[in-house]
Amino acid sequence: MLVNKLFAVFVFVGVPFVLIGAFLNWPKMIMFFLCCVGIIGLSGYIGRATESLAIVSGPRVGGLLNATFGNAVELIISIFTLKAGMVGIVLASLTGSVLGNLLLVLGLSFFAGGIKFKRQKFSMHSARYNSGLLIFAVIVAFVIPEVFSMTMNPEKTLNLSIGIAIILIALYLAGLFFKLVTHRGVFSSTDEPETEPEVPEWTKGKSILILLLATVVVAFVSEQLVHTFEMLGAKFGWTELFIGVIIVAIVGNAAEHVSAITMAVKNKMEVSVEIAVGSTLQVAMFVAPVLVLVSLFMPQTMALVFTWPELVAMVTAALLVINVSSDGESNWFEGLLLFAAYIIMGIGFYLL
Amino acid sequence: MLVNKLFAVFVFVGVPFVLIGAFLNWPKMIMFFLCCVGIIGLSGYIGRATESLAIVSGPRVGGLLNATFGNAVELIISIFTLKAGMVGIVLASLTGSVLGNLLLVLGLSFFAGGIKFKRQKFSMHSARYNSGLLIFAVIVAFVIPEVFSMTMNPEKTLNLSIGIAIILIALYLAGLFFKLVTHRGVFSSTDEPETEPEVPEWTKGKSILILLLATVVVAFVSEQLVHTFEMLGAKFGWTELFIGVIIVAIVGNAAEHVSAITMAVKNKMEVSVEIAVGSTLQVAMFVAPVLVLVSLFMPQTMALVFTWPELVAMVTAALLVINVSSDGESNWFEGLLLFAAYIIMGIGFYLL
Amino acid sequence: MLVNKLFAVFVFVGVPFVLIGAFLNWPKMIMFFLCCVGIIGLSGYIGRATESLAIVSGPRVGGLLNATFGNAVELIISIFTLKAGMVGIVLASLTGSVLGNLLLVLGLSFFAGGIKFKRQKFSMHSARYNSGLLIFAVIVAFVIPEVFSMTMNPEKTLNLSIGIAIILIALYLAGLFFKLVTHRGVFSSTDEPETEPEVPEWTKGKSILILLLATVVVAFVSEQLVHTFEMLGAKFGWTELFIGVIIVAIVGNAAEHVSAITMAVKNKMEVSVEIAVGSTLQVAMFVAPVLVLVSLFMPQTMALVFTWPELVAMVTAALLVINVSSDGESNWFEGLLLFAAYIIMGIGFYLL
Repeated sequence: MLVNKLFAVFVFVGVPFVLIGAFLNWPKMIMFFLCCVGIIGLSGYIGRATESLAIVSGPRVGGLLNATFGNAVELIISIFTLKAGMVGIVLASLTGSVLGNLLLVLGLSFFAGGIKFKRQKFSMHSARYNSGLLIFAVIVAFVIPEVFSMTMNPEKTLNLSIGIAIILIALYLAGLFFKLVTHRGVFSSTDEPETEPEVPEWTKGKSILILLLATVVVAFVSEQLVHTFEMLGAKFGWTELFIGVIIVAIVGNAAEHVSAITMAVKNKMEVSVEIAVGSTLQVAMFVAPVLVLVSLFMPQTMALVFTWPELVAMVTAALLVINVSSDGESNWFEGLLLFAAYIIMGIGFYLL
Repeated sequence: MLVNKLFAVFVFVGVPFVLIGAFLNWPKMIMFFLCCVGIIGLSGYIGRATESLAIVSGPRVGGLLNATFGNAVELIISIFTLKAGMVGIVLASLTGSVLGNLLLVLGLSFFAGGIKFKRQKFSMHSARYNSGLLIFAVIVAFVIPEVFSMTMNPEKTLNLSIGIAIILIALYLAGLFFKLVTHRGVFSSTDEPETEPEVPEWTKGKSILILLLATVVVAFVSEQLVHTFEMLGAKFGWTELFIGVIIVAIVGNAAEHVSAITMAVKNKMEVSVEIAVGSTLQVAMFVAPVLVLVSLFMPQTMALVFTWPELVAMVTAALLVINVSSDGESNWFEGLLLFAAYIIMGIGFYLL
Repeated sequence: MLVNKLFAVFVFVGVPFVLIGAFLNWPKMIMFFLCCVGIIGLSGYIGRATESLAIVSGPRVGGLLNATFGNAVELIISIFTLKAGMVGIVLASLTGSVLGNLLLVLGLSFFAGGIKFKRQKFSMHSARYNSGLLIFAVIVAFVIPEVFSMTMNPEKTLNLSIGIAIILIALYLAGLFFKLVTHRGVFSSTDEPETEPEVPEWTKGKSILILLLATVVVAFVSEQLVHTFEMLGAKFGWTELFIGVIIVAIVGNAAEHVSAITMAVKNKMEVSVEIAVGSTLQVAMFVAPVLVLVSLFMPQTMALVFTWPELVAMVTAALLVINVSSDGESNWFEGLLLFAAYIIMGIGFYLL
């Protein structure tokens, strides 16, 4: 596939040059560009390795693997950003990941698929499960600490965040148990008669090797990337918010963008929605709370308190997506709607 | 029809006296009353001319005509208010138009129709399309600049508003393209077997003539109306907000109120919903952004930033209507619910 | 039934000791505990008496009885708290009642029922009616005075509250008329073939006697309970908010909790939802506005203005429940979701 070749070029050009540049102290501008290229390429490999491993492991363990490694890149970048004390960028990139997946990825998928097909369907059961979790994560678990923290001291705010983080992770695991064990089979669209058995791209051993290797390299490149952020702010006048919400979010989720849109054009809207919304839920219910807990061992702790623009953008995005996807159908105009909402928010964060 | 006769009386009494009063400098109180009467009558004519023209032009051009001239009166009043520098009243009357259409018109339609029929149905496809756009316009496009502007300077706020205005207009046009071209036929209720071909009330030439004439006269009367606003504030202690939200909104939309309720009693709930919600979307996605752009050539620019009470009233109204109409059915109690919400907001704006 | 025996023990242990303790001035800590036990027991009796009376009175008067006495205990406690001038605790306990019913009672019902049955169904018509009212009461009628009062003086805020209170009560009665008279029969699930005719537990006379007696005793015990609140604050460092939201709410609604969960395990999810959501609507549309009006004759008036954390907790809870219940189906995971939201809010109110 063309995309896979592109990812290969990205890795074999990006990574070596990042290494060389790190030793020779190349200008930050060039390093930023090289790191982005490298990470996009590497996340392509991580995605394919996870998928192959998921197929050979059967649906349950596979679902678990996808749910854990799906946002590995994002998690790694964030941990290094946290280590550098840039809590604001971490929260912004979580926001960006939520907005990017909900509005950009899903929007472009609906649009690209809708150009080719008049209506595309996906499971209503899945849509409902997702929308319940979206409201729980974004509207309850993110809004409550924001509002309550207005009349709390920082220590109490952190304690509330820790409590919420533990509950979010517990529910995320409970949700996997629900989806993969007690209510398996409920979540498939009735329209698809039967899908041919999938063949893994790589063997089990090769997949694990690539997964481990790519993860280690991503970690290294991420650390280099983080060091370029200050320059971006100084040079372009970009705020922490814009860097996090737009730049980090797009780079960290590039591989998902590609596969979601590819699936939509093949009329596998089920899979597209699963990638976009599933990835959002992973960020909100797994990556974000893990980062809150990880931050306890870092120089600066991170409470689950976003800025108001970040929070309001996520809440309105969630409401829009829930409304648009609740009927289990999509068309090009709904895609355009989501995309337009992303552009509005992008302008907002740029000007902020 | 009785209503049409009433409109005729309104025009032939109201307009001449406004003319005379303007020359003789009659008391503002009388002028306010005469202007209201004149505008209500004229909007009746504009509505009928647009409808006749829409029938002879076929559904596509007809839909476009309705979408453009449907809120012509409102647009004209607002431009004159903007010219007089009363930005607050313009924003308030946009709010009032949204609330009036969503809660008052739709509420009375549901109630009046529901008294006669136990349950009334309308197309779910249409309801979904409308609710997606309502969330996009009111909850995304209006809320984002409000929240973001809290930490922005006025210049950036205006830039953000311009960006959003352009996106709203573009999406409004894309929505028409979706509804009238790519997905035509999807938006009709399956229950109605076939509707008899409509006969236009007036010929094409007569319609265009009346449309042009009435529009010019509305412009003149609107300018007189705007000059009475200051008096209203001074005499009754009414705030800008109350004048805009309740008075201007009711006068500017009187003709729509009448036809929506008439249709509901005839069990054509499809048409009622289209008038009420369609008109709301027109105000939010076409009139409001056009006014933002027009204001750039006016003494005072207008950012898309409402007061908090205005914004919250619109957002909660939108959520209520989306919830109540999502099942494609209505009854008298749902109508009462919407009407009661309007009363609550009316009391609020009166006391503010 | 075991539960009924427990209620009997609670009454015959709790009430006499409260009496003795009140005369002997026992420590507040013990009195608090005894009052709680007594009230929980008594509300069990009130619930059974109301139910028996409802059966013998036929569905219409029965529905009315349930709607009036369903939250009698809560209303009585609140009036005594109001008399003691603790407006903050009254508002907090209203909040707690809404959250407790929507998240705790419904959550545990869904969870307990879902453990036994894979999917449980309830009427979609009923779910829609409830969600419309939830949005009207919690999102329109509670949010509007909150936001508008920010720029209003206290007198106007009170006037707005009175207006809203009257509208809420009127709509509550209109809703009963809708449900019990004009649209009776619409609200039954199509799945249940026919229910056996219910046999009242007690005769009409006995029911009325017990209802009156229990109500008088509850009033007495409630007054004692209110006197222990200050001690709770001083001793445990609990805030007014936590006492109201968690303690008063759980004690005042204990009987409902028991019956809702019992019904869920018997797969009568219809009844569980009716108890939980119906009780919420009663609190929001009847108890709360009645208390606003009653407060006009009290030393301190009560406007319908919650604290921001209270309001936001109720709004997000309403959105979550509406989303989760809109499909007329429940499972254990949805129950867990609601319960987890309650825990998050509980932690928040505890830390506040």
